[in-house]
Amino acid sequence: MAFVPLNLFLLKQEVASLEWSVDDPRAIHLKKVLRTETGDRVDFGVVDGPRGKGLVKWTGSGTVQISFEWNGPHPNDLVPISLLVGLSRPQTCRKVIEQASALGVSELIFFRAEKSQPSYEKSSLWDEEWQRLLIKGAEQAFSCHLPRCEKVNCLETAIQSSLFSTTRLALDVYEASQSLSEVTIPNNENTLLAVGPERGWSQSEREFLRDQKFTLSHMGQRVLRVETAVVASVGYLSANYWPGRGWAGE
Amino acid sequence: MAFVPLNLFLLKQEVASLEWSVDDPRAIHLKKVLRTETGDRVDFGVVDGPRGKGLVKWTGSGTVQISFEWNGPHPNDLVPISLLVGLSRPQTCRKVIEQASALGVSELIFFRAEKSQPSYEKSSLWDEEWQRLLIKGAEQAFSCHLPRCEKVNCLETAIQSSLFSTTRLALDVYEASQSLSEVTIPNNENTLLAVGPERGWSQSEREFLRDQKFTLSHMGQRVLRVETAVVASVGYLSANYWPGRGWAGE
Repeated sequence: MAFVPLNLFLLKQEVASLEWSVDDPRAIHLKKVLRTETGDRVDFGVVDGPRGKGLVKWTGSGTVQISFEWNGPHPNDLVPISLLVGLSRPQTCRKVIEQASALGVSELIFFRAEKSQPSYEKSSLWDEEWQRLLIKGAEQAFSCHLPRCEKVNCLETAIQSSLFSTTRLALDVYEASQSLSEVTIPNNENTLLAVGPERGWSQSEREFLRDQKFTLSHMGQRVLRVETAVVASVGYLSANYWPGRGWAGE
Repeated sequence: MAFVPLNLFLLKQEVASLEWSVDDPRAIHLKKVLRTETGDRVDFGVVDGPRGKGLVKWTGSGTVQISFEWNGPHPNDLVPISLLVGLSRPQTCRKVIEQASALGVSELIFFRAEKSQPSYEKSSLWDEEWQRLLIKGAEQAFSCHLPRCEKVNCLETAIQSSLFSTTRLALDVYEASQSLSEVTIPNNENTLLAVGPERGWSQSEREFLRDQKFTLSHMGQRVLRVETAVVASVGYLSANYWPGRGWAGE
């Protein structure tokens, strides 16, 4: 069986060295997937901190020791997009969390939409797994920065608690007034993007969005799954912030 | 457990009526997920043919009969993008096939890249499952049109067999000369987009791509999974063809 190597190990705190049991999943990854030997150097990072190299030493007594050489702090490489997503099935939310983190949105807020099922919130995903998925996405992207992530009770609270709100867009294949590509998003400005739950927006949510100055926008006439719509639209909007487009954050 | 309704049932051929055993997975979907009763009308489509409504009749003798009212042919709603993807793990290719079909690329060609593993081609995915995933993506998107899909031996063959080739782009986070958003893609023109396998392009593939007039392009500095890169880049490029952008195909 083939594995794809992790790009980066993210630690929660900057340390000079650490020791893992060989049974630790991270040690298993170092051994079985990266096939490291004593003396190998592996990419590590610290959440909101530096990237660096970890020097691997298999002790022969059931542990692996890693000593670090840290670089300067890794610049914030998140794009100034706040993403609001209507609570959907856990398997859908998992894909959204990992991929939104890999794409580097600044913020990911799930809200209980009128068409969300109450059972969605009871999933074990919302205990701790969501945090691991955020880290997994950032490790994949080779970044030390995680989106702020929370789960709130309704669309209104999600909008109120979002960091960004300059350009307000909501995806809607049915009642969009224009396509996402017709919306002008000035460089350097941030975007608040709302995506409905799997069963779509209710009429009262659409009215609320319009009241709150959101432009209902489509991405063509094809009906996309929530996770596909999130990745396609964040990919589209992120282009404003890629190098070469004059974004101050680069 | 909650299910998300299928948007459309796609049939391979236009028929006036049909009868399914109640054990048929499609009959089970009609019963358990859509909760249809006799007299209900459900969305159906024919591959490369019309959309219409199917009138449901549960016979009470172990079958469901469906009689159709077909509309005129459903216009081709695929975007003029040929997508080449380096063969990756089957679970990755599954996500690519279903989502590329939902996004509506015209063509999806998997090629054996230098860093593809030989085992990838032996997966049962390549027997028949890939066709079901194409249909699933189109059903999700509420479309009757499927991408042409094939699997070829190398990048060169993939390029030679692709329908479209006017603008030639290859994703590469490491040696890109510009970002995807700096590439000018005139409306009405088609695009050939190449995405490497999970382990990335080899140096000889990069040289071949440059020889073949591909522009190596990035989507920011974050390292994305193949399926995330595909959806984000196809989402980005599709914007050229969304309504309101003057594409003749609309």
